[in-house]
Formats: sequence, structure tokens, C-alpha cells
Amino acid sequence: MSVTAAEGFVAAGCHAGVKRRRYDMALLATDDGKPVPAAAVFTQNKFFAPPVDVSRSRLQANGGRASAVIVNSGNANAGTGPAGKADAEAMCAAAGEALGVSAEHVLVCSTGIIGTPLPIEKILAATPKLAKKLSKEGGEDAARGILTTDHKSKEVLVEGPGFTLGGMAKGCGMIAPNMATMLAFLTTDAAVEAEEMQAILRDASDRTFNTLNVDGATSTNDTVILLASGRRGRPDLAAFANAVHKACEDLTLQMARDAEGMTKMVELRVTGAASDAEARAAAKNIAENNLVKCSWYGGDPYWGRLLAAAGSSGVAFEAEKTSVSYGGITVSRAGTNFDHDADAVAAHMKQERIEIEVALGLGQGSARVVGIDLGPGYIKENSKTS
Amino acid sequence: MSVTAAEGFVAAGCHAGVKRRRYDMALLATDDGKPVPAAAVFTQNKFFAPPVDVSRSRLQANGGRASAVIVNSGNANAGTGPAGKADAEAMCAAAGEALGVSAEHVLVCSTGIIGTPLPIEKILAATPKLAKKLSKEGGEDAARGILTTDHKSKEVLVEGPGFTLGGMAKGCGMIAPNMATMLAFLTTDAAVEAEEMQAILRDASDRTFNTLNVDGATSTNDTVILLASGRRGRPDLAAFANAVHKACEDLTLQMARDAEGMTKMVELRVTGAASDAEARAAAKNIAENNLVKCSWYGGDPYWGRLLAAAGSSGVAFEAEKTSVSYGGITVSRAGTNFDHDADAVAAHMKQERIEIEVALGLGQGSARVVGIDLGPGYIKENSKTS
Repeated sequence: MSVTAAEGFVAAGCHAGVKRRRYDMALLATDDGKPVPAAAVFTQNKFFAPPVDVSRSRLQANGGRASAVIVNSGNANAGTGPAGKADAEAMCAAAGEALGVSAEHVLVCSTGIIGTPLPIEKILAATPKLAKKLSKEGGEDAARGILTTDHKSKEVLVEGPGFTLGGMAKGCGMIAPNMATMLAFLTTDAAVEAEEMQAILRDASDRTFNTLNVDGATSTNDTVILLASGRRGRPDLAAFANAVHKACEDLTLQMARDAEGMTKMVELRVTGAASDAEARAAAKNIAENNLVKCSWYGGDPYWGRLLAAAGSSGVAFEAEKTSVSYGGITVSRAGTNFDHDADAVAAHMKQERIEIEVALGLGQGSARVVGIDLGPGYIKENSKTS
Repeated sequence: MSVTAAEGFVAAGCHAGVKRRRYDMALLATDDGKPVPAAAVFTQNKFFAPPVDVSRSRLQANGGRASAVIVNSGNANAGTGPAGKADAEAMCAAAGEALGVSAEHVLVCSTGIIGTPLPIEKILAATPKLAKKLSKEGGEDAARGILTTDHKSKEVLVEGPGFTLGGMAKGCGMIAPNMATMLAFLTTDAAVEAEEMQAILRDASDRTFNTLNVDGATSTNDTVILLASGRRGRPDLAAFANAVHKACEDLTLQMARDAEGMTKMVELRVTGAASDAEARAAAKNIAENNLVKCSWYGGDPYWGRLLAAAGSSGVAFEAEKTSVSYGGITVSRAGTNFDHDADAVAAHMKQERIEIEVALGLGQGSARVVGIDLGPGYIKENSKTS
């Protein structure tokens, strides 16, 4: 159940010394070193990190092909200027040399603290050893090597008709629509062209990773990469797209459950908006609202805060047309309190996964966000860098 | 030093029983019951509360004149539908009757929890007694009567050339640009027309109250009201505008210092943006970012999070042109670390009031936001309604 489940891929993880003790590097590669079709989705943050710059440029230059991805955790190589870019290129060169492949076909990702130079010597020294460890069984080690404040590895396996799709991810903070510090790597043995994979990966990311909102912060380093070895031939494209969506959704929920300081995960749907875009804007404003997030932490079905957040999100809103439900139980209608079974709502609020619908009653627009509560654990994890 | 300092105004506060023990009502009135020019700025939240609806309609209908303002705290009369509107009108009628003035000249404000019907009988029963208590000395009681989770009363007095301007305010949560649960009441004995006062109050609010961002949440009930008795004649209009700005600024800083769970107040300036609007957008994204707010709580000058927030705010951004300073000490330049006196920065971060500048290096646009850190106290105050 990992990034090496599909035919044609090997992986490894190791400790290079970026972090004190835990694994801090991962390498994913094709088993014969040949470049294969690759698709990728990157952060939309304009303060993007050098490795994002390097990987994006390579895929553009070579038409979407890659032999390997080298990753370090513990340091994001972000806010590091031209020296950071040279470091990212040096990581590709070192991996290329160790694998006997062109550096142009090596992608690079980093995740961790921002604004501190990468300990590049340690990383370069570890790379040949990491390459030697590459194996079919190395998926789990690789999944450990990409983690930062994550409490658990995140892996996924989807068996499609005639193909396998596997993957790994990391991420639990600085996550907002459009990804933030999350990395995900997917591999498949289906034969799919880079361009068609790109459309499928973009669509799946929009519907999964990009609906996850931990703290309204979009990171500098987000990257999702999908590699296809083609070993098992042409798949049914709809089934393949479905498998990619399923894998991304699974990894998204794993990330939500592991979010920094999280005690409750909220599936928030905004429906009846004037458009999908307006539904997304309202859902984002609700999921990022600290008063709302605190009410989730407290298990308090305080619908007034949800409507106040929706009403201040800039979208069309008429209080008399709204309704709000928790766990399918309507607690507010027409912008005011609606008689309901308070015990049933309280029981729902005690669960780790809460379902909320805010219906605006104006049109057909809808959106879904996976939100996280705000409790003391989040502050504890984020008030000190070190 | 209060809302009754200017000639022509009286006020009172009392306990009506909306809250368990503390004062929960205030009344402000002209001392002869005559209507005077009034200006007001209201919440921009589309989920606005019935008292906002009633006060706004009255000022529109009567051309900007008021004899009195009746206020209750403990319950926002928001999310209460048509019954809530009837309650807000009943409050005006009761105050009008007790004062012998037309209900059309009585404004009404409520603040507190959302979605629970107002205990209107208690409020109506207390109103005649409250009217009897009206006095020149009642300003302090009135300032207590409008508080919710505030820890302190907020009062201000500005002596202008030939006029006095005094006021009171409440607010410490659900505060975001464009006010949120904050109420402010200003009175002056200068003779100023409603229309010119409106422009002055709008401008002052934009530069003060609307720069305060506690939790990115805009409330249902925000209201700022300015009444002018005219007793001391025509002021120099520039001096008057200046006094209004000064009073609003003072109350804004009092609210910031009293923000829910606040341990640090941050004066954040974004400069060098492509436009003032872009500077405001970037500043808002930074001040609402929970990772940034946690770093303020921890006293950590983590400039990477500031740039990540600016870079994902949708405004023009080029990392190589940026610089970031804490307390006037540059810690980042060109999107990367800049050598600095870490002890001096650490000493600045220990203060209650932190100054940060994020310079984008692109144009002349600038904005200022007063932000608040995010610590455990905020969550404690906001995770349970009761």
C-alpha cells in the first residue's frame, strides 16, 4: 500500500541530518531509470520556493517527463533566494548522478521551515546512499522521509481495472485551498500521456486537496506529482480519472485527520449559492473564521457565527432564505432559530467528523470544504519555530 | 471623560436582567429631548441584525436626526427574524415614551449572543427606570452598560478649539475590517450638519475602527453613532474632523488592548504595494493568518510566514523586491534572511505592542492594520457560548 505498488517504481527513505533524528529524505524513481510521463500541480503562492521553481521549469522544458523525484523534509528551502535555487538544482544533479539519469529528468521537493538555508552538504552526502537503498519495499520508508509535523505516514492504494495507483503524502499545517505545505506523490502502471494526466490531476486536486482548509494559509512549497510507468498498458480513462480522484480524496482525509492540533474535522457544504464560485467564497470564509473554528472545538452548534461569516464573505446573501443544518438536523431557518432535537445535535457535535450544510436558498451553486477546528493544540504547535 | 462631556447630553446605565449580574443597558439622550444632527456607520455584513436595520432606516427616513440611543448588551438581537425587528422597534418606542420624544428619533443598538430571542419584557420594564437615571454623571454607567466580553470600559475625551468631543465604545471579539461586534457612541457640542458629519465619521472609521482585525470576523451589529448638540456653535471643520479621527483612533487602540485572549497588539504596515487597495488586501491576509498570529503570540519573528501570507493574498508580489522589519529592524530582504541584531528583535517582540512593516517594493500603495495575536485565551473565550 504505497507509492511503489504500481509496476515500475522503486523508492527509499533515510536520515540525512536535516532533522535531528527522524527520516528527512525520500527518493522515488522508475526502476529502469527511464523517464516516464509526469503531471504536477504546484502552489499558487507567489512566494513559491526554489524547488517549486526548479521542478516546474523542468517539466515545462522536457514536455512532462521524469525519472525520479528527490525530496527532503525539515527545511522548505523557501525564502532562500538564488542560493536556494542552486541548492535545489544541486539536489537534482546529485540524484541524477547516483541514478545514472539526466538531471533534467529529476524533480525536487522540500518541506519544513522557511527562511533558513538548506544544509545542502548533508543532503548531497546522503543522496548516493539513498539511491542505493531504492527498492520495491522502500515505499514506507519514503513515506516517512517526507513528513514534517505530521504524526503519521499517509499512504494510499487504489486498484483500477487493469492498473494500480499508489501514493504517499504529507501535510498538516499551512494548508488552505490551493494546497499549502502539502506534498503528494502518486504513481501508476497505466499508460497515460502527460497532457491527459495533467488535466485529470488538476481536476482531482481541485476537488480534494484544494478543499482542505486547515488555517487559511497557502504554503510556499505545495506539490502534487503523478508518474505513469505505462507497464500495464492503456487504461479506461474514466476509470483512471476516478482512481486518481479516489486516491487524492483518501490522502486529503488522512491529512485532515492529522492536522496540527485538530480535534474535529468538518465537512462543510455551502449550497444554494448564486454560483459555484460564490459557494466556494462563502465556504472559505466560514472555514477560516476563528469564531466558527472555536465553536467547532467547543462542540457548540453556533449557527449564528456561520451565517455571520457567510454574510460577510461578499457573496449574495439573504438571511430569510437561509437554513443551516448540523448532521442533517436543521437548526436555523430563515436566518433565525429553528426548533430541533438539541440532544441529537449535541451527539453529532461530539463526533470527530462533523457535517454541516449552510443553504443560501438563492441558486444552484455549491461547494465543499474540509475544515478543522481551532483548539489549544494548534497554538502549541505553531507559536514557536523551534 | 465620557459620552456626556459635550454640552447637551445625558446618559445612564443599568441592570435589566439580560445578563445575570452586570449592567446590560445604556441610554444616551439630548438633555432637552430635541433631535440633533446624527451620523452613523453600520456593519457591512449582509447578515445584519434587526436593530441595525431599524436605526439605519430611521436615519434615512428622518434625514439624520436623533434625540436618543437605547442600547442593550448580552444579546445581539441578531438572527431573530421579524420578531427581532418588532423587539428593536419596541425598544425605540419604550425609550421615546419614557423621554417624551418621538420614537422616530430614537436609535437602537444591541450586542451579545446571536440567534436567541431578546428578553424584551425585561428590557421594556427597565427602560422607564433607565430614563429616570439620565444625568450628566451617567456617562460611566452607560459605558459599562454596553460591554459584553470586554474587560474594561472604553471612554474617550477630545477637547477641540471651541468644542468638546467625547465618546464610549465596546468591542473585543468578532472584529475585522469593517468593524464587527463593536459599538461606539460619540457626542459633540459643535454645530455640524448631519451630512458633513457623515463624511467625517465614515473617513475616520475607515482609518481607525476598520483597520482593527481581531479575528477576521465581521459582526452582525456594528454601529458607530455621532451626535452633535450644536450648543457651542460652528467649529473649524478641519479641527473637528481631526478630533473625530483622534477619538476613533483612541477607542480603536483601547479595543485592541482589550481583545479576547490578546497578549500582543501588532501595528502592521504594508508599504510599496501596487495600490492602497492591494496593500489593504495583503495586510488583511497577513493579520488574519493563524500561523502569523501564533508566531506573534510566541514572540517569534518568523518573517517567512508573513511573506507566505502576502504572496497568497492575490496581490502583485515579487519576492526579490520585498523586505520585512520588526520594530524598525530589517530581518528579511529580497525574500531571504537579512543579517540583523537578533537580541534587539527579540527584545522588541517581548513588548505588548509590536511594529511590523512588510515592504513590497513595487509601488506607492500602503495600508495599516492593527492585528492581534492568537493564544490559548482566545480559544478559551470562544469555544463555548455559555
